[in-house]
Order: sequence, then structure tokens, then C-alpha cells
Amino acid sequence: MGSEDGGGGFTSASVEALLSPFARSLAPPTSLSPLPFDLNAGVPDRESLPAAALAEAARAALLEDPGGALTYGGAQGFEPLRAWIAERHATETGQPVTSAEVTITTGSAHAIDNIAATFVGPGDVVIVGAPSYPGAIRTFRARGARLVDVPQDDDGLRVDALKATLAALRTAGTPAKLLYVVSNYDNPSGSTLPEARRRALVDVARRHRVLVIEDDAYTGIDLDGPPLPSLSEIGGGEGVLRVGSFSKIVATGLRVGWIVGERPLIDRLVFMRFDNGSSPFVQRTLLHYLRSGAHEPHLVRLQSIYRERRDVSAAGLRECCEPYVTFRPPAGGFFHWLRLRPGLDAAAVTAAAARQGVAVTPGTGYFANGGGEDRVRLVYSALPPPALREAIARFGRALEEVAGVR
Amino acid sequence: MGSEDGGGGFTSASVEALLSPFARSLAPPTSLSPLPFDLNAGVPDRESLPAAALAEAARAALLEDPGGALTYGGAQGFEPLRAWIAERHATETGQPVTSAEVTITTGSAHAIDNIAATFVGPGDVVIVGAPSYPGAIRTFRARGARLVDVPQDDDGLRVDALKATLAALRTAGTPAKLLYVVSNYDNPSGSTLPEARRRALVDVARRHRVLVIEDDAYTGIDLDGPPLPSLSEIGGGEGVLRVGSFSKIVATGLRVGWIVGERPLIDRLVFMRFDNGSSPFVQRTLLHYLRSGAHEPHLVRLQSIYRERRDVSAAGLRECCEPYVTFRPPAGGFFHWLRLRPGLDAAAVTAAAARQGVAVTPGTGYFANGGGEDRVRLVYSALPPPALREAIARFGRALEEVAGVR
Repeated sequence: MGSEDGGGGFTSASVEALLSPFARSLAPPTSLSPLPFDLNAGVPDRESLPAAALAEAARAALLEDPGGALTYGGAQGFEPLRAWIAERHATETGQPVTSAEVTITTGSAHAIDNIAATFVGPGDVVIVGAPSYPGAIRTFRARGARLVDVPQDDDGLRVDALKATLAALRTAGTPAKLLYVVSNYDNPSGSTLPEARRRALVDVARRHRVLVIEDDAYTGIDLDGPPLPSLSEIGGGEGVLRVGSFSKIVATGLRVGWIVGERPLIDRLVFMRFDNGSSPFVQRTLLHYLRSGAHEPHLVRLQSIYRERRDVSAAGLRECCEPYVTFRPPAGGFFHWLRLRPGLDAAAVTAAAARQGVAVTPGTGYFANGGGEDRVRLVYSALPPPALREAIARFGRALEEVAGVR
Repeated sequence: MGSEDGGGGFTSASVEALLSPFARSLAPPTSLSPLPFDLNAGVPDRESLPAAALAEAARAALLEDPGGALTYGGAQGFEPLRAWIAERHATETGQPVTSAEVTITTGSAHAIDNIAATFVGPGDVVIVGAPSYPGAIRTFRARGARLVDVPQDDDGLRVDALKATLAALRTAGTPAKLLYVVSNYDNPSGSTLPEARRRALVDVARRHRVLVIEDDAYTGIDLDGPPLPSLSEIGGGEGVLRVGSFSKIVATGLRVGWIVGERPLIDRLVFMRFDNGSSPFVQRTLLHYLRSGAHEPHLVRLQSIYRERRDVSAAGLRECCEPYVTFRPPAGGFFHWLRLRPGLDAAAVTAAAARQGVAVTPGTGYFANGGGEDRVRLVYSALPPPALREAIARFGRALEEVAGVR
């Protein structure tokens, strides 16, 4: 029964009326595809998942301290895991970070929501890249943020444009509050910010008192050597919340992420956790795994797997697609961000690819305020090389079809 | 370095300025206590946690389908677990619910947040009990809700007062959107809504087109026989989102909750998940456990444990505290909700109890708009009977001290 007949039920139409205004304004998520060749979902290779090591770690965590693993663990997260993250961060950055400056979240997407819940109110200005991670766009928008975008080029966020935008916002009396940026192997652009841009970004954010959210979800999937200094390191640990995740380097199915930042910021993020904390069972399982000795060789293996896939896919794109797309292969992560030749439209290309059995993602889903009609994101992480070659050959045929060659 | 000297860092003061207006308005959470006798934290008995069965279930889940357990599982949740929940719900209520009408959340606190994100915008009116679960109060407030409270008595929410409140809100042009209610073994009041009130509540909510959030977190901890028909059942599956959890009947450390409701409502809740779904590893572990045959006897054992603790604590309260407190023992769940004799103040009683090494929770934390100075919540679930008796004897001495007898 729906409202039409006076019943108590909610129909699609009456649910629409019940929605929060922010919920009503959101675009649908980019979702998994059931097509035979999936170059859409940014997921790790399934074969390399450390299932046996995690099973042993889960057993150890549960039997070592059943009460600790199976009872609420507190809003900030399991202290020994926070200490592990702090120590790694300190080693990488030289900053004397402690577990008090770390909080654990239920994946890095949840970390962004925790940050949005704490700092973003209706009308607050949040700066994102054009393009940017759609999950972040949706999360900020769901809190009523006004999203202002700054263009990216092959080297990531254009800091000259960021400077101009921040100045214009201040002049308009609507200064920006947060800046969201993926400095390593961006999703979707694959770009990595050069060090000079990092320094300029931190400097301008500081001058404008903008809190920087550095999403480091792909760091670790380093395919051309170690990453550049993080924004957090360049900022001397100040003014930056560094968000990370174990999804790409261990398993997306665990849902463990983290935030490192100054104590007053972390304290407020913890204060805004109403979910009784992330699972201590999962956190303890993860820590047992990290300490088992299995993780370091696993990470080297992952880098080797993804390096091969990046190179195989880049070669395939040059061979089968080059007249129709241009791109710069990324230094890490999972994504090629293709620029389509003028006249080719992302929606048409995506539809033609689907007819070939290949799922790719049109660029338009990655822009907060429009754009991306000439872009396609292509994931190389999830398929082994033979399937990847075949998928890209099919994608090339889709491009030919849209270009009118076939 | 803080803003005072032009540095990039955030001090406590500059963080305060950065907060969302909703974050700034929130009361601190009621937290775990480090005192020797904890009658504050609403947590299950640690000894009875099914750790060995869960370790076996985790191993089975990981080895049976490593890719499924360790890769994003989708925003709605693992279908076989949703089917298990739907089947149980259908058996209890006679409603033909399917897995499409269920979504899995990261604990029931997260379920409430998912609902708030979807349906609550700034200024929207949400009805809660006086008293009510503080996590729900905080979650709705963090979305900008205007909370209107309706008094409770020993039989739970006063539906006569609810009717008057809904009518007054409608007349004022600010009709209520949601009604949050715990119909079984409420936190903190321990009250259970009688069936006549349930029917009247569903009827008035339907007439006012208010979406009912029925938080069933304690159902299963049934100490005096099976529960009454749920609001969801009385509503014929319409107009009610029923929220549940495995926290109390399996383990709080898993963080698995769920929502059952009409398909258009569930679809919208799933649409608002930006966290890449709850952990498939945990969901699959839980389902292996539920199917193992260990769960049903475990639940019977839990009911026996908590029945004894309720009775031991009720006897202790009558023996040691009765001149100073009155209460009605609950039919399930974890809580005694004590009314203090006139002249005794909850803050003073809580402080005196702490000096005796006993943590209890003052009633004031459970009211959205003030109240509770004459109330104390006492948790009987976490301590075994000998410690429970000792804790209540000490609590009695604290009451005597505040009453000026000692």
C-alpha cells in the first residue's frame, strides 16, 4: 500500500519526498559491472589475496584475547595497530608521530566521511580536483558542502589554478575550508603530484588556513620506485590529515583505513564516531598478519604483478587504441586515464565497449561540476595479462566502431 | 605551530573554528569506565563469547572463497546473510520478506547513521523518547535534525503524548519526519512497549506519515519469554525500518547490523552508502557461524546468563538500595533504569558510586532536551553474579552517603 490509498507504505515517490535535500542531489555511484572483461572496478588482483595468512591471523587474534577481539574496541581504534601505523609513518616521514595522532576507520571511504562529519556543514566550501574520486565528491555533498573544483593536468592538481581559486573564494567572502587531494596515483587520473607542486600546494593551503585531506589510498602500489614526500611530511605534520587504507595493499574486504594528523584534529574525529568504533576483530587480525612476516614479500609481489599489468595494458593501448586515445602511464596504482581524440564521446565509447564485453568508466562520473566527456578511466589491476590484452584489443575495436572506421 | 604565529598547524582553538556547526553542538559520548566495577558499559558477558566457533567460521569463510571474502562485497551486503536475516524475520513476523528488503550495516549504530544520512536534513524534526539512546540522539543531531522528545513511563513511549506532539508539530507547520523507538528492552529505560501501545503507535505514525525507526538491538536477549510482535509486523511491513544487530547475541566486536524495510526505502539507504559496503570477510564469517549449529544453544545460554544477572541485580537493588531507588526489572536486555528518591541527584550519586569503585551512568546523558537528574542507568550484563552483588552493595553505600545516612 502506498500513500496514494492512505496506507502506511512508502512508494518510490513518497520515499523521494522523505529524502534529505542533500541525499536528493547526489549522483548514483559508479558500480561494478557484470561484463566479461571488467576494466571498471578498481579492485586488486584476486589470486594474490593473502587468504591463508589472514585465516591464521584471525585464529590467533581470536584465541589470544577473545574478549578484546570480540568486544567494542573504542572509537579511536586498537592502540597497537595505531602504533604500527604511527611507526611506519614516522619511518617514512621522519616525523615523531605517536599512536595518539592516528585513528582507525572502517576503510578510507569511511575516513573521508568521518572528516566530512566533523568539519563540513551546509554551504561550506570544499576544493576537489577536476577530476576527483566520486566517493569523496558524494561524501562531501551528502554533508551539504559546496564543491569547487580545480583543474588537473598530467601532473595532477594545477596549483596555479588552486591559488587563484582560493584567492577568489576569499574575496567572495566564502573561503574554502577543506582541500581534498590524492597526491600519489590519483583515482581516476593516475597522476602523481611532482615535489614542487606538493611544496606549493602545502604553502598556499597554509596561507589560506585550508585543511588538506591527503588521500593516500594507493600508496604502496609504487611501480616506479618509492613515492615522493607526502604532503603531510612537507607540512611538517601540520595542516594535513593523511588518509590511508589497507584495501589495496592487503584486501578491500577487510575495510580498514586510518587517518594521521595533529592531535586536536584526531581528537575531534574520534569525538564524531557514533558507530562504537571499527571492528576490533578485524583490526587485531590485520595486525597479526602485518607482524607475521608475510606482508613485506606480499607487497613486493603485488608491485611486480601490477607493474606487469600496467606495462601490458600500456603496450596494448598503444598498439590497439593509440589513434583514438592518448595517455601517460601512471607511476603506481590501478588506473589509466585516457583522453579521447576530439569527436569521440565517453558515453558512446563506454556503450560500444560494453557491446564488446568490456566495462570501462566514462570520465563524466569524476567531475563535481561537469566535464569528462572526452575521458575514460581504464582499470588494469583486476585482470591477469592475457585477459587484459584481450580486453584492450576489444576496447580498440569499440573505439574504431565509434570513430566510424568499422 | 598554531595559527597564532602564522604556522600551518591546528590548535584546539583553531580546530573549534573549523568544526561543522552540527559537530559543535554535540554532547560528548558516554564512555567506558576504568573503575573496578563497571555497571556503565552496555556490553555482553566476556566469558561467553563464542571465540573458538568464530575462529573456525573465519577460517572456513576465507578458504571457501578467498576472493569473495576479501574483495568489496557491495553496498547492500552479502546476499546469503541478507537471506538468513530475511528468513528469520519472515518466520517471526509471517511477512514474506526477501533479501532485497534487507541491508547489512557495520553495526546498528551505523544503521542509524545510514538512515539519518538518507532521510534527515538540517531542521528536519525527529521524534525520540525521553529518555533515548544517546548514540541515536548524537547521530540525528549531527545531520542537523531538530529533536523533539516524547516522555516515557515504565511501559515505554507514551503514545498519548506522541499523538499530541505529532498533532502540534503538524499545526506548527513543522511535521515530524522520523520517529526513533526501541520497543523491546529499551536503552536506557529497559522498558518494553505493551502490544496496545505498539498498535496505537503504528497507527498514529501512519496517519502522520512518519517513518518509524524500530531499533531492535536487544531483541534476542529475551528473559521472560519471546518478544511481542514488532512494530514492523504490526505495520504489515509498511512504514517501519526495523534495525537489528548481532552485537548482543553474538559479539559487539564484529560490528554487523542490519535494516529490514520496504524495498524503496532499502534502495535509498543502499544508495547512500559511500563506504564500499561492510566487510564481506566479517559477514561471511558470521554466516558460517550462524549456520554451524553453535548459535541456537549459545543464545539459550546467553538468555540464562543474563536472566540470572538481572535477577541477582534486582535482588541486590531491593536489598541494598531500595529506600533510595525504585525500578521495574526489565523483561530483557541489559539495563536497570533507576528512579532516585526525591532529593537525590544523579550527578552526586554517580560521583559517590565512583568513589566506591563503581561506574554507573547518570540519567542526564539520555535526554535530547534536558532531564534525567533523578535517574541512573545500571548495566547488569557485564559482570558475573559475585562481582555484581559486590558492585550493588557498594552502590548502596554510595546512595547512603549521598542521602546523608553515612
